[in-house]
Amino acid sequence: MPIKLVTTVAELHAESARLLAAKQGVSQALVPTMGALHEGHAALARAAVAQNDVVVASIFVNPLQFGDAVDLDRYPRTLDADLALLDAEGVDLAFAPSVEEVYPGGEPLVRITSGRLGEKWEGASRPGHFDGALTVVAKLLHYGIPAAGLPGSGPAVADGAGTRLPAYRAYFGQKDAQQLALVRRMVADLNFPVEIVGVPTVRSAEGLALSSRNRFLSDDEREAALVLSRALRLLEARAAAREPLDLESAVDLVKSQPLVELDYFDVVDPATLEPLAENCRETPFRGEALALIAAKVGPVRLIDNAPLNS
Amino acid sequence: MPIKLVTTVAELHAESARLLAAKQGVSQALVPTMGALHEGHAALARAAVAQNDVVVASIFVNPLQFGDAVDLDRYPRTLDADLALLDAEGVDLAFAPSVEEVYPGGEPLVRITSGRLGEKWEGASRPGHFDGALTVVAKLLHYGIPAAGLPGSGPAVADGAGTRLPAYRAYFGQKDAQQLALVRRMVADLNFPVEIVGVPTVRSAEGLALSSRNRFLSDDEREAALVLSRALRLLEARAAAREPLDLESAVDLVKSQPLVELDYFDVVDPATLEPLAENCRETPFRGEALALIAAKVGPVRLIDNAPLNS
Repeated sequence: MPIKLVTTVAELHAESARLLAAKQGVSQALVPTMGALHEGHAALARAAVAQNDVVVASIFVNPLQFGDAVDLDRYPRTLDADLALLDAEGVDLAFAPSVEEVYPGGEPLVRITSGRLGEKWEGASRPGHFDGALTVVAKLLHYGIPAAGLPGSGPAVADGAGTRLPAYRAYFGQKDAQQLALVRRMVADLNFPVEIVGVPTVRSAEGLALSSRNRFLSDDEREAALVLSRALRLLEARAAAREPLDLESAVDLVKSQPLVELDYFDVVDPATLEPLAENCRETPFRGEALALIAAKVGPVRLIDNAPLNS
Repeated sequence: MPIKLVTTVAELHAESARLLAAKQGVSQALVPTMGALHEGHAALARAAVAQNDVVVASIFVNPLQFGDAVDLDRYPRTLDADLALLDAEGVDLAFAPSVEEVYPGGEPLVRITSGRLGEKWEGASRPGHFDGALTVVAKLLHYGIPAAGLPGSGPAVADGAGTRLPAYRAYFGQKDAQQLALVRRMVADLNFPVEIVGVPTVRSAEGLALSSRNRFLSDDEREAALVLSRALRLLEARAAAREPLDLESAVDLVKSQPLVELDYFDVVDPATLEPLAENCRETPFRGEALALIAAKVGPVRLIDNAPLNS
């Protein structure tokens, strides 16, 4: 079945419930996106389609998480290409609501606040960004619940073993490591009825992490940006070999590239995102950590990361 | 069937799903309480039992919404009497989790923030109170979803007309008018899959709004506290008669009672809680409004309110 585009929450609920029934489905997935889809999003959709009977991808550029109206305006919008990509991956429904559908009363008064986990790293250079992002993710996670518990949705079907309800999963890229950590934390702290699945970062053949913003890089800048993933690979190799990470030398490698203006580069605890200073730099690496990097390359701010395990 | 006490979220989900299946239920309700139950809570339970097949009442004194550890410690805890009251009303499940069950990782990092609606009136004298209250209400509303969309909860049962899921409602007292307005706003702003039902305030024969804190009033203070409801009745009568509300004379009535220290008394928009100054005081009243009052009586801070309609 070709993908179906819906633009209202009511249509989303009606169509996903219909599909779940038609497929006798046992699981439903949400893949939240801001459109401008690339192979990284395709990997999210592919994972969701492989693991769930009904898959909804949302396409919504959320004004709440853009500090800067110019950045919001220049964010690429490519709906036809997005639908073709999602359709090719087997996604059932694309949910592309208007700003009015998502915020019918204007900006929400009651919001999610991301606390200190949202104030560091990306949050430090984008104040309020993660509060806005988590607020819309909270809304999207609720929209995507499999037609569940909605007032007036009708009588339950119960069998001898109890009413059986579909599993519900939502898919996020590991590329946005801080966002993923915050979404996991929100779901745990506020007990959202959903399982969060993190999907590994997709890279170009040369190693550049895919991002909707890469299209704004010149050829020279794209080449220069490869130093981010090269530096991460260096740390990965040292972690795998249980050597000291020697973050300083990796930082020096990035700084040797004149087109790249480094913002931060650190090794952190994967859950709290607190730096793991003593643990990782001088002594041989052992355990689990996350290397985070952010840099400005030409007109674009790029982020990348690598899970370190040994 | 006598009420069943559960203390973990897993038990809550298992028992509520079992009951819903056994009753072939089409609806489930949550009645969130902090225990120390009185006739006001009984009215919530009664409304929930009348309208739903499975009713869960939660009993949890939430440390997050108490600014003051002393206030938290002296908050009355009366579990046996609470269970008897809920049982008499026909509540199916009492969910009384420990602080560790609700906050397994300590205080939540990601929270709900109530914005400017939570900073005025009660929020002005209790900073952070509504953020803490909404954060635990968000958790409780998620716990109470009818075993819906929980990861791994098993296969869906679908009939020809689609998978039918139970309605989900949560019951709050109109006595805590600002809390009710904030919960309604949270559910709307963040799209929680639940219908919020407000239940009218229950009063003593003399008119005192029931509250767990009334037990701390002396006989003289209890008598003096009646001036709050008398002042509200005055406004109700003027509103019903479409006369000017003349809030000033009602304020004077409260101030004439020496044991009562008035904090605020105003007429507001029921949704935004913004004062309706011009509309209501000189000109004849017409429309919908809410009169809010708060006062200290002896050792106790009391709140009350009245919906005004004409």
